[in-house]
Amino acid sequence: MSSNMFLYWGSGSIPCWKPMLVLEEKGLSGYPNKRISFGDQEHKSDEITKLNPRGQVPTFKDGDVVVNESNAICFYLENKFPDKGTKLLPDDKAEFGRIVQRCAETANVFNTAVVNLAQYRFKTPKDKLDEELLKTKYEDFREELKLWEGYLAASGGYVVGSNFTMADVFFFPYVAFGVRLGLNLAKYPAISAYYDKVKDRPSVKTTWPPHWADGPGDSSIFGPV
Amino acid sequence: MSSNMFLYWGSGSIPCWKPMLVLEEKGLSGYPNKRISFGDQEHKSDEITKLNPRGQVPTFKDGDVVVNESNAICFYLENKFPDKGTKLLPDDKAEFGRIVQRCAETANVFNTAVVNLAQYRFKTPKDKLDEELLKTKYEDFREELKLWEGYLAASGGYVVGSNFTMADVFFFPYVAFGVRLGLNLAKYPAISAYYDKVKDRPSVKTTWPPHWADGPGDSSIFGPV
Repeated sequence: MSSNMFLYWGSGSIPCWKPMLVLEEKGLSGYPNKRISFGDQEHKSDEITKLNPRGQVPTFKDGDVVVNESNAICFYLENKFPDKGTKLLPDDKAEFGRIVQRCAETANVFNTAVVNLAQYRFKTPKDKLDEELLKTKYEDFREELKLWEGYLAASGGYVVGSNFTMADVFFFPYVAFGVRLGLNLAKYPAISAYYDKVKDRPSVKTTWPPHWADGPGDSSIFGPV
Repeated sequence: MSSNMFLYWGSGSIPCWKPMLVLEEKGLSGYPNKRISFGDQEHKSDEITKLNPRGQVPTFKDGDVVVNESNAICFYLENKFPDKGTKLLPDDKAEFGRIVQRCAETANVFNTAVVNLAQYRFKTPKDKLDEELLKTKYEDFREELKLWEGYLAASGGYVVGSNFTMADVFFFPYVAFGVRLGLNLAKYPAISAYYDKVKDRPSVKTTWPPHWADGPGDSSIFGPV
């Protein structure tokens, strides 16, 4: 069922991790794939760009259907295999609405944590950091985390309700990325309990970024959050 | 059918325009709504923030289901009313994949046109503009437009195939926004033919940003593209 598929992915990329979680949850383990090296710019190789002119991973095909944007791959797989493995988008229309709402809201986590903070810290030499700007970036990420802390505290243990859904596929990788880079979850007890539970899920353990085993991340990135 | 719904929206906001197009295409005209004033910061009012803690529009509810992120509203409505009005996401799995791929790719149009270019131009005093940086921003938007020119030239008249779908809901408002701010479509013949056709669609005419009738936009924004 998955032998016609092919996924190009990179270790530690949240956009890659999301469809990999869906593939495991849908019981499609063993799909053909290739891990590329960002350091060697392999995402800009002809092999990738002939399928994905943007030169990015994930790059994914299923037979002659090419779907490369991470969110699109997730929805494509759930739509193709609604009754296989974990049901990530329920039949109930209201619950579907609540889940796609939270999925879309993770764009704000991406912006506050990854674009505004992690990428700024990685790309700026230490003596060039704007400390005032950095304070507002930390505050923005804190405000974002408070929203999710509230969502999780009010739900039944997952982002929406008491089952693992597409909303968890979209949210969990950010929490793991945060923890790796020093985020202290003691300040966010509902997110902390959520992290402890979901990190041991089989799909999560199987897809855990392999290079994270090589050593810790830079805990100064999210330490002040 | 739509009397339990309520939409808060602002004129000229692409995130508002997208669900408004879906509501019309699904035959849900006449839904209760309120146009808010961005100038008066009405999106930060208690009336909005009690439904949407982010203080943004669109803010939307359907009975007790609150869905505020524009992409989520679009998918929620299509999922709730798949057989009403225009079918925006087809039953065919491959076609569904191609459509959600293009929907997700519009995030790149948002980044290159709106965030990097229009917002930079609107927020930066003329004598503070970095001309070199501006050149790369124009080039990035040109590269993005070339991709979409290719997609449209190879398709059957719409973003995916020969029918108006969710991919058009997500893409068309950016083209109209571009044209209003000086984008010269003569350089992009497939996008130009697409714009001429879709702008006269009833759902598009009904939802055209009302304040655009008050006067032209600043054509210097996208003039150099």
